[in-house]
Amino acid sequence: MKDKLSLMIPGPTPVPERVLKGLSKHPIGHRSNEFQATTEKTHKLLQWLHQTNQDVLTITGSGTAAMEAAIINTLSKGDKVICGDNGKFGERWVKVCRAYGLDVQIIKAEWGQPLNPELFWKALEEDPNIRAVIVTHSETSTGVINDLELIANHVRKHGNSLIIADCVTSLGACNVPMDKWGIDVIASGSQKGYMMPPGLSFVALSERAWEANSRSNLPKFYLDLKSYRKTISKNSTPFTPAVNLYFALEASLEMMQEEGLEEIFKRHERHKKATQAAMKAINLSLFAAEGFGSPSITAVSPNNIDAEIIRKYVKEKFDILLAGGQDHLKGKIFRIGHLGFVSDRDIITAIGAIETSLSSLGILNQPIGKGIEAAAFELAPKE
Amino acid sequence: MKDKLSLMIPGPTPVPERVLKGLSKHPIGHRSNEFQATTEKTHKLLQWLHQTNQDVLTITGSGTAAMEAAIINTLSKGDKVICGDNGKFGERWVKVCRAYGLDVQIIKAEWGQPLNPELFWKALEEDPNIRAVIVTHSETSTGVINDLELIANHVRKHGNSLIIADCVTSLGACNVPMDKWGIDVIASGSQKGYMMPPGLSFVALSERAWEANSRSNLPKFYLDLKSYRKTISKNSTPFTPAVNLYFALEASLEMMQEEGLEEIFKRHERHKKATQAAMKAINLSLFAAEGFGSPSITAVSPNNIDAEIIRKYVKEKFDILLAGGQDHLKGKIFRIGHLGFVSDRDIITAIGAIETSLSSLGILNQPIGKGIEAAAFELAPKE
Repeated sequence: MKDKLSLMIPGPTPVPERVLKGLSKHPIGHRSNEFQATTEKTHKLLQWLHQTNQDVLTITGSGTAAMEAAIINTLSKGDKVICGDNGKFGERWVKVCRAYGLDVQIIKAEWGQPLNPELFWKALEEDPNIRAVIVTHSETSTGVINDLELIANHVRKHGNSLIIADCVTSLGACNVPMDKWGIDVIASGSQKGYMMPPGLSFVALSERAWEANSRSNLPKFYLDLKSYRKTISKNSTPFTPAVNLYFALEASLEMMQEEGLEEIFKRHERHKKATQAAMKAINLSLFAAEGFGSPSITAVSPNNIDAEIIRKYVKEKFDILLAGGQDHLKGKIFRIGHLGFVSDRDIITAIGAIETSLSSLGILNQPIGKGIEAAAFELAPKE
Repeated sequence: MKDKLSLMIPGPTPVPERVLKGLSKHPIGHRSNEFQATTEKTHKLLQWLHQTNQDVLTITGSGTAAMEAAIINTLSKGDKVICGDNGKFGERWVKVCRAYGLDVQIIKAEWGQPLNPELFWKALEEDPNIRAVIVTHSETSTGVINDLELIANHVRKHGNSLIIADCVTSLGACNVPMDKWGIDVIASGSQKGYMMPPGLSFVALSERAWEANSRSNLPKFYLDLKSYRKTISKNSTPFTPAVNLYFALEASLEMMQEEGLEEIFKRHERHKKATQAAMKAINLSLFAAEGFGSPSITAVSPNNIDAEIIRKYVKEKFDILLAGGQDHLKGKIFRIGHLGFVSDRDIITAIGAIETSLSSLGILNQPIGKGIEAAAFELAPKE
């Protein structure tokens, strides 16, 4: 059916009507008092979301702009860094670092497996000159959550290094207390837990990161965070911001605050468990290692069946967009996004559609219903 | 009055309802066939707008991102460049170039005066190693249009150098035939002639610029145009694009094509003349040198009166936002934007409001009406 698409991908995620209405307001002058008020309000709510007292800077750009800003504002050419790499977004960190001439040591895990925090500890012990440890918290390409808390803890104990994290699909889905965990840089993007369309990205720096910034010699202009920090102190921006996306951000952060962080985390946890249980109940394998499923995305491996056949059927018949596998995982997995503005109904709907599609495709070797049943159990109110 | 603001600033400019409706659509997957169709269509229309056969690349970011991309994709550290500087955006080019270690020679003109093309010719004659000449076409801060055609011609005759232009407030307002004039790089932004909110910027490169790109050694990732060129050939983008802003872009470019380039240019010319004539008729001085007024913005100097007093009165009483002067021009000038989705009615309205405000403030030493009369003459259909 035309124009009835339901997004169950890890970004763009579904957008509430209130946010869409913010988007479609007529723009105002970005140097006006009215816009300053929006900037001030969104900044405070971003600090709340990041659980930090630091500035959270908003960049008009994709999530990758925030990732690049994280690197080029804290490091210098030739600096030794460690990149965790267990998926496509881990690989992106490596590419960004190499584009700027950093000396990159890679700590790998197979796609689907989590990064081993002890390998980071070991590497930091072996080389006291590591300037930064760079990690993807929720690896969107594989649906794996890495143990950022423990890795950050190792980095803090080591002392000389920064911990830089891509929290693009974890922030607003699970607990990421920036100050408590001692994370130095968090990068994120609007089309994820923020329940917004893409176009804004966010980066927050700790005091340690700002100290590193004063030594950083990599060239930059649009992504020079010093100019963002200077202007946010006046509730402004260094360059013309995407005014309408700020209106949307204001609406979405208000909605998030109304729901509350704890409730948001519980909802994502519940949807993760329901989705995982349902996939197991219909005899599909989970791609992420047991216990390391992301709160925002479940990657599903239909064993010997082309995952694209299932994904296409679900889209054509039920107007639900699932994500495919990327790179060598294309056809091997599909991914169910349960990130942002997703309700229990959406989970039941997606599982019902997948289960029905498998049956229609002759792949489901059991009566329809076991997936929904398993999900319903997880979604039911707990004592 | 609340929520009745009329924007008469040089960006953000007024946005048509059709474009706002595009903005508020629910996002779709940016890797879907449906979004590829949008990307393909907007790309073709961008080529039409730039009057070029080259790719026109869309960046999710402010206009400054496109300016930076223009520099870092075509030049290398230590390269000698000439920057024209007769206003705030000329200064920005200098800052971008210096941030990347270029060897910048500045050709200045006083704010309000146009750049002298012969000084560029002379500088190119004197130093055959100039790699690029970098110019602001319409200087938004002063309302001056520089003679890009002649400067580009000088550069072409010289042979070894690129001509890079900020066409942020000229593209979609007056004739900028990229291929015909031999311009190597054009940077622009969405909140201007495009009749859109801010958030997208655009950069087009000539074959010469792409050749220079293959030698350019400045580090880059998010703004690496090679990845944009590679993906646009598949109607895609290297990073998650601001999907909703693309919907808006599609709507605005369609509207521009329906109006036609010639008609758009004539409308801006008419509004410029009407605004200039009206300001003279109410005894306010034009800040830009005679004959060098920008088609998109008229800077007005109310002589010994604080321009901010007039600007604030017009906003508070008539809900029309005019732009103030920037930097040392604050209080010295106000600027009337007549860029993008501006009708004859808007011009009459703004002039009526300014004239009435001057009268109320006791500054207008003549009966109300001469400004409107002068504008009406210019707006009237010509034989």
